[in-house]
Amino acid sequence: MNFHTRKWVKPQDLNPNGTLFGGRLLDWIDEECALYSIIQLENPKVVTKYMSEINFQSSAVQGDIVEIGIEVLNFGSSSLSLRCEVRNKMTRTTIITIENIIMVSLGKDGKPKPHGKTQVEFVKDRLRDGS
Amino acid sequence: MNFHTRKWVKPQDLNPNGTLFGGRLLDWIDEECALYSIIQLENPKVVTKYMSEINFQSSAVQGDIVEIGIEVLNFGSSSLSLRCEVRNKMTRTTIITIENIIMVSLGKDGKPKPHGKTQVEFVKDRLRDGS
Amino acid sequence: MNFHTRKWVKPQDLNPNGTLFGGRLLDWIDEECALYSIIQLENPKVVTKYMSEINFQSSAVQGDIVEIGIEVLNFGSSSLSLRCEVRNKMTRTTIITIENIIMVSLGKDGKPKPHGKTQVEFVKDRLRDGS
Amino acid sequence: MNFHTRKWVKPQDLNPNGTLFGGRLLDWIDEECALYSIIQLENPKVVTKYMSEINFQSSAVQGDIVEIGIEVLNFGSSSLSLRCEVRNKMTRTTIITIENIIMVSLGKDGKPKPHGKTQVEFVKDRLRDGS
Amino acid sequence: MNFHTRKWVKPQDLNPNGTLFGGRLLDWIDEECALYSIIQLENPKVVTKYMSEINFQSSAVQGDIVEIGIEVLNFGSSSLSLRCEVRNKMTRTTIITIENIIMVSLGKDGKPKPHGKTQVEFVKDRLRDGS
Amino acid sequence: MNFHTRKWVKPQDLNPNGTLFGGRLLDWIDEECALYSIIQLENPKVVTKYMSEINFQSSAVQGDIVEIGIEVLNFGSSSLSLRCEVRNKMTRTTIITIENIIMVSLGKDGKPKPHGKTQVEFVKDRLRDGS
Repeated sequence: MNFHTRKWVKPQDLNPNGTLFGGRLLDWIDEECALYSIIQLENPKVVTKYMSEINFQSSAVQGDIVEIGIEVLNFGSSSLSLRCEVRNKMTRTTIITIENIIMVSLGKDGKPKPHGKTQVEFVKDRLRDGS
Repeated sequence: MNFHTRKWVKPQDLNPNGTLFGGRLLDWIDEECALYSIIQLENPKVVTKYMSEINFQSSAVQGDIVEIGIEVLNFGSSSLSLRCEVRNKMTRTTIITIENIIMVSLGKDGKPKPHGKTQVEFVKDRLRDGS
Repeated sequence: MNFHTRKWVKPQDLNPNGTLFGGRLLDWIDEECALYSIIQLENPKVVTKYMSEINFQSSAVQGDIVEIGIEVLNFGSSSLSLRCEVRNKMTRTTIITIENIIMVSLGKDGKPKPHGKTQVEFVKDRLRDGS
Repeated sequence: MNFHTRKWVKPQDLNPNGTLFGGRLLDWIDEECALYSIIQLENPKVVTKYMSEINFQSSAVQGDIVEIGIEVLNFGSSSLSLRCEVRNKMTRTTIITIENIIMVSLGKDGKPKPHGKTQVEFVKDRLRDGS
Repeated sequence: MNFHTRKWVKPQDLNPNGTLFGGRLLDWIDEECALYSIIQLENPKVVTKYMSEINFQSSAVQGDIVEIGIEVLNFGSSSLSLRCEVRNKMTRTTIITIENIIMVSLGKDGKPKPHGKTQVEFVKDRLRDGS
Repeated sequence: MNFHTRKWVKPQDLNPNGTLFGGRLLDWIDEECALYSIIQLENPKVVTKYMSEINFQSSAVQGDIVEIGIEVLNFGSSSLSLRCEVRNKMTRTTIITIENIIMVSLGKDGKPKPHGKTQVEFVKDRLRDGS
C-alpha cells in the first residue's frame, strides 16, 4: 500500500470533543479515492459507488499528522476497487480501514464507461511510453 | 424515520464534476448521527464507532435540497445503533442509505460509559417530567 | 413552529471569545429560510429580501446543539413571509428570534414572479396528489 | 463613513443561484462590526447584541469586489451603536444597509462592562499619546 | 501605504500550535493583492505572477486583529507591482512584509494585456470624471 | 524530490476567474512544509520563518490533480531548509516552485530549539530501530 496524501489535524478538523471529526476523515478518504482513481483510469469523471463497512479504530487529536494509503484490489470493466487505510504518521497506529471502495468511471452521458485498464500504472511510465 | 436536518447544495459542496461531493455527504451524515445521539443519550461525549456498508444510489446537483433521516435500531448498554437515509427533499429520491451506524457514549476517561437509556425520548417530554 | 435543521457547534463556528459566532448563526438562518421557501414555493430561485430586527438573546458554546425553526406568517403574490427562531435543543432556551423574513420568488429574468401559493403544503401531499 | 475591509466574491461565497449568498454577507458584516468595536473599545470581548432591520437592496456576482463601511452612531456606557453599509467597490451601488447595530463590551464575567469611551479614536493617536 | 482589509483571527485560522496559520495569512494577502489590482487596473481578470521573498517576522493569536496594507511600486504595461505589509491593528507590530508582488492583467485569451494605467486612481475620482 | 500530498481542485479552491486561487495553493504548500518538518524534526512545534521568491509558472483548473513535492536542502541547528515544487499530476507541468523555505523548531518557550537532526530519516527506520 502506498501512502501519499498527508493532513495536519487543525482546529477546524475537530469535533466539539476535541478529536478528529469522523465526517472530516471520511471527506478526506473520499477525495483521495477519487483522485487516485482519476489518475489510474485516466478519466476525470469518476464517482464513488460503494464503501464497505467502516470501523473507527482510533482517533487523532489536534497537531497529529495522518496519512492516507490506497491500494488497488481489482479492476472491473468500468470500475476500480480500492482498499484504504488511514494511519497516524508518527506512530503508524491505524485510525480507520475500509476494505473495499468501488469507484466507477463515467462517460459524458453519466453512465458507466469501460476504462480499458487492467493494472496499476505509474504516470512516469506513461510519459516515457508516450515520448 | 424522522427527517430533520436539511442542506442546500451549494457550490462549495460539489466535486469537480458538478455533483454533490460524496465526502461532504458523509460529513453531514456523521454530524447528524452525532447530534442525534447526544440528544438521545443526554451525553455530549459521543463518538462514531462503526458504519455498515454504503451504497451511493443517486446524487444531487447544485440547488438541490437534501434531508437527512435517522431512526433508532437498538439501544446497547453504552452504544446506540442508528439507521440513516438521505434523500432529495423535492422528489423523495433516496441518495444514500446506511443500515447501521453505531455511536458510543464515552465517560470523561474516554472509555465507553453506560447511558441507561432504552428507548427514544423526546425533549419536550423530558422538560415536562422535570417540571 | 416546526424545528427541522440542527447544527452541532464546532470549533470553526466560534468567535475568538469561544462562543457561537453571530455571523455564522445568521448564515445558518439565511440558508434555512431559503430552502424552506424553495420547498414551499416550488421554485429554486428564491432570494432573501428583508429581515426585521434581530435580538441576540443568548449564545451557545462548543458542543451545543441548536435547532432552527421556521413558520409561515403570510403568502404574498411573489413573496413569502417567515418567522424564525433558533434555540438550544437540550434546554430549549431561545438564542435568536427574527419576527419577519421576506423571501421573494424570482423568474428566469431575475424579477419577482408570482408563485401561486396561498398556504403551507407538505411534500408528501403533493406526491400523493400527483399519483 | 469609512470603508475598510474588502472581499472578493469567490465561488464559495455564492448561493446555488449564482449570486452572493445573503448569509455570507451577514457573516462578513458581523465580523467587521466586531473587530471595529474591539479596536474602538480596546476590549477584545465584544458581542453583537442587536441589528435593526435589513434590506437586501442589490446583490453581487462572482468576481465582484464589495467593501464594508462602518460609522459610529453613539457610544453607550457599555455599548457602541454602529451603522453599516456594504457596497460594490467599482460601481458604488449599495448592496445592504443596516441602520443600527449594537455591540456590547463584556467583562471577564461575561456581563456588560463600561468601556469609558465617548468618541472615535484612531490607533495612531493612541500610540502617539502613549509615547 | 493604505491599510484597508482587516481580519479577526478566529479558531479556523490557527495552526495546531495555536498561532495564526502562515498559509491562511498568505491566502489573505493574495486575495487583497488581487482585488486591489482589479480596482486599479479596471480589469477583473488579474493573476498573481510573482512574490518576492517572505519573512515571517511575528505571529498573531486568536482574537488579534490584523490589517493588510498595499502600496503601488510600479505600473508595467500589463503588470502592476505592489508592496504588502500585514500588521497587528492594535500594536502596529509588523507580522509580514512582501517587498514586491507582481500582478498581471490578462485579456480574454488568457494572455497579458496592456492596461493603460500609469498611476493610482481613486474610484471616487473616476465616478466624478464620468459624470 | 518526493511527491506525497495530492489535492483535487474543487470549486471552493478557485478564484473568480475559474483557475486555482494562488492563496489556496500557498496555504497547501505551507501545510505540507509544516507537516514534513514535524515528521523530520520529531517536534510538533514548528513554524514557517522564511520563503524565497515565488514564481507562478502555470495554473490549474477545476478537476485537476496537483501534487506537492518537498526535498531537504539543509539541516540547521534549530532550522530545516526545504525546496518545494507543486505540479500537475497528470501532465507533470510545474505550477510553482519555491527554492528555499526555512522552518524553525521551537521549544515550549516559543524560542528556537536545536533539533539534533542532520539527515533525512524515514519513520519506518525509526520504528525498526526502536524495536
